[in-house]
Amino acid sequence: MKLLVGPKDRKYLVDDEKTELHTNYGVVKLDGAMPGDVLESHTGYKFSVIAPRIVDLSEKLPRAGSIVLRKDLGYIIACTGAGSGDVVVDAGTGSGTSAMFFGNIVGPDGKVHTYEIREKFADIAEKNIKKASLDKIIKIHMQDIREGIAQKNVDIVNLDLPDPWEVVPHAHRALKPGGFFVAYVPYVEQTQKTVEALKEHFSGIKTFEIMEREIEVKGIGTRPKTRMLGHTAYLVFARKY
Amino acid sequence: MKLLVGPKDRKYLVDDEKTELHTNYGVVKLDGAMPGDVLESHTGYKFSVIAPRIVDLSEKLPRAGSIVLRKDLGYIIACTGAGSGDVVVDAGTGSGTSAMFFGNIVGPDGKVHTYEIREKFADIAEKNIKKASLDKIIKIHMQDIREGIAQKNVDIVNLDLPDPWEVVPHAHRALKPGGFFVAYVPYVEQTQKTVEALKEHFSGIKTFEIMEREIEVKGIGTRPKTRMLGHTAYLVFARKY
Amino acid sequence: MKLLVGPKDRKYLVDDEKTELHTNYGVVKLDGAMPGDVLESHTGYKFSVIAPRIVDLSEKLPRAGSIVLRKDLGYIIACTGAGSGDVVVDAGTGSGTSAMFFGNIVGPDGKVHTYEIREKFADIAEKNIKKASLDKIIKIHMQDIREGIAQKNVDIVNLDLPDPWEVVPHAHRALKPGGFFVAYVPYVEQTQKTVEALKEHFSGIKTFEIMEREIEVKGIGTRPKTRMLGHTAYLVFARKY
Amino acid sequence: MKLLVGPKDRKYLVDDEKTELHTNYGVVKLDGAMPGDVLESHTGYKFSVIAPRIVDLSEKLPRAGSIVLRKDLGYIIACTGAGSGDVVVDAGTGSGTSAMFFGNIVGPDGKVHTYEIREKFADIAEKNIKKASLDKIIKIHMQDIREGIAQKNVDIVNLDLPDPWEVVPHAHRALKPGGFFVAYVPYVEQTQKTVEALKEHFSGIKTFEIMEREIEVKGIGTRPKTRMLGHTAYLVFARKY
Repeated sequence: MKLLVGPKDRKYLVDDEKTELHTNYGVVKLDGAMPGDVLESHTGYKFSVIAPRIVDLSEKLPRAGSIVLRKDLGYIIACTGAGSGDVVVDAGTGSGTSAMFFGNIVGPDGKVHTYEIREKFADIAEKNIKKASLDKIIKIHMQDIREGIAQKNVDIVNLDLPDPWEVVPHAHRALKPGGFFVAYVPYVEQTQKTVEALKEHFSGIKTFEIMEREIEVKGIGTRPKTRMLGHTAYLVFARKY
Repeated sequence: MKLLVGPKDRKYLVDDEKTELHTNYGVVKLDGAMPGDVLESHTGYKFSVIAPRIVDLSEKLPRAGSIVLRKDLGYIIACTGAGSGDVVVDAGTGSGTSAMFFGNIVGPDGKVHTYEIREKFADIAEKNIKKASLDKIIKIHMQDIREGIAQKNVDIVNLDLPDPWEVVPHAHRALKPGGFFVAYVPYVEQTQKTVEALKEHFSGIKTFEIMEREIEVKGIGTRPKTRMLGHTAYLVFARKY
Repeated sequence: MKLLVGPKDRKYLVDDEKTELHTNYGVVKLDGAMPGDVLESHTGYKFSVIAPRIVDLSEKLPRAGSIVLRKDLGYIIACTGAGSGDVVVDAGTGSGTSAMFFGNIVGPDGKVHTYEIREKFADIAEKNIKKASLDKIIKIHMQDIREGIAQKNVDIVNLDLPDPWEVVPHAHRALKPGGFFVAYVPYVEQTQKTVEALKEHFSGIKTFEIMEREIEVKGIGTRPKTRMLGHTAYLVFARKY
Repeated sequence: MKLLVGPKDRKYLVDDEKTELHTNYGVVKLDGAMPGDVLESHTGYKFSVIAPRIVDLSEKLPRAGSIVLRKDLGYIIACTGAGSGDVVVDAGTGSGTSAMFFGNIVGPDGKVHTYEIREKFADIAEKNIKKASLDKIIKIHMQDIREGIAQKNVDIVNLDLPDPWEVVPHAHRALKPGGFFVAYVPYVEQTQKTVEALKEHFSGIKTFEIMEREIEVKGIGTRPKTRMLGHTAYLVFARKY
């Protein structure tokens, strides 16, 4: 995939085999275009060619359902210390965003196993993962993770499911000592049930919420934006010792 | 390094050559101990042996000055899409925490160049990086990043400096198309100066603050913790197109 | 004025002389209706008659421009200790919401002087204040408060103006010892200028922002609302000693 | 009571009959001192004499237990539209802070009935209320509000109790149409129980939390304070129609 950035920072994600991009700013010939090139449309607009980063892919690839936002995903990555070579188990896959962020981090020495039971989502995720060239790193399992986790010596189990407490014993068996359990749950009741289930198996159980506030630095003055997101989910962390 | 987790989840980071660990819970013999083992102190307490993750290392290794917290570091990682194979330029090194988180993510196919002019900090960071086995990935440059960045084709320039605006033109030259500039600044005035300097060279300039709130889920009830951190810094992002 | 509360808690503010209220739920005869009565529309819907409180009036009376929200107004009231008998100077009047909240509190033994230079706003405010029966307590001054405050021995000067720093010396002269200066300003730059101007005359200068978050307690579960207001204004307080 | 404000804005609350104030800045003679006077200690320090406002009294009078903070009290006042002439029922009294804020607002035409079953608290509150000259407005009832509310035609029932749901039916009977029920509860579980109990009797049930953040505007720069309060309580509102 290539990313073209045109006027007003409009982004266009294009397949490598594509030879032409049609935009509101004219047609751009793509033959042999490489990251770093600056192309011109037939009407004279400039387009920069970029190797898309995971943030571009997650922004431009098709989505199904809601995705875990960067404020939350970043916090999960930082608190678990996700890194190159890690083995991550993820569920549900959804459109694959979380799996792709993890896949991008664990790299060729790591592995992401992502579980999804909704065929529609698995299909979208599969295509997205392929387009992100992460299909050697991420494996989609069309299985119900509540029935078990086949993997062993896992570093992180990351759950975006309505009932993560059902996965707690499986996660404990799958994780290596020092491995992290993470659940993303919108409701307090889910948080409580997850914490309760974790107590039997895990240590270091902690729950957080992350609030992101954009600051506008403009000519008229500096101030936080009028609108912000009040809540996405609680993040429940636990660790196997 | 090994991490031993003892009673009350007390953590002990020990060098691999060490043969004995002395704790308040007795002496633990370490000969041949491997991650996954459970050892017993001479007084009968149990200690789990774990391969330390980056979060353990950053918690237990010596610190100098304040460090970038996980809420902020995670957000930087997620918004830049830091991943395996990335080339990151980081300054100032401090005790090396941010560089180590990036190093852990970019892995053997990537590289972190971290700039520090305060010798004391560079020394501490060097030892920490070595103990984290990241010395092949992270290179400390004892240079003033405000005088220039030697690297090219950089994916992310991450700055925790009092005057990041001085680095803006250097960062622009060092970054590859699509690469990210990030500055971590505590004050509004620094944010304004950074944004102003960025406007000449960069696109997609945005500023955020991240608030982290812990939720206590206890027998007595569920509620956010009484104390929280009111502010660490503003995070200024920009991108080269 | 009377407040009628009909089906789905729909509220209707009606003049006392009105004899009929036409609603989507039918026509309600109002002859002799008193607070505490429950009326029935000609189609059989029930309507409770209530003596409107200031929160109903501020909700239902015409507005011009943006108003100071309850989170901010409440904080101003609590931090200044606004109470019965206080003399308050307020500017700009806008549609009169803040003046009316203060008038409702200071009561017949107190006084609110509200300054407005925009005739359109003063007209709306005058009508609203009359409908709220606060016209004996609140006096609108069609004057520029930046040119001076005629009142003496004032308890609170409350400013919702673009340039409150211009009013600082006037406010200092008008306030009694122990009196409070308050400015409501959306931008950081305004906050800085106001604080700077206050330093010459006032003590106890402090700036706050207040965030309000609604919690949904529903059958499906408990969680903060998805949307929240990210920012309205900074509240700058100072005191004359 | 008089309030003296000395060097570094140190505040001293003194009884009117007192003739001398001993401070670290010397002895101040108080004979005939009136608000507006500036006195001098025998060592030459200046002290301003001020008529104490409710915020001074609540700050300087003895406290027992934790008090409702201004961010929360202000929000309650603004959302209920508390004003001159209102009849307020309050429980538990604690050291009387909330009752005193309400008493200061409702004034001589209003009334505050505050319920307390812990004798120690009622004693402290009684003295505080007397010192605040609010004893004609506020009446302490040494009764368990969960057993009933004697008052009728009440405008606001304000509860800071562990089990406000027990008071819901009493509050409903006591309130006039349009009157407000408010509960201040630290835990989610209390919030849920209160909301559940309210559904049978009340309309307009809403829950909020209020976060207060101080902004430091200093020579070195502008930024939110490092520390802030993460949580005090949820505020549950409901209305009788």
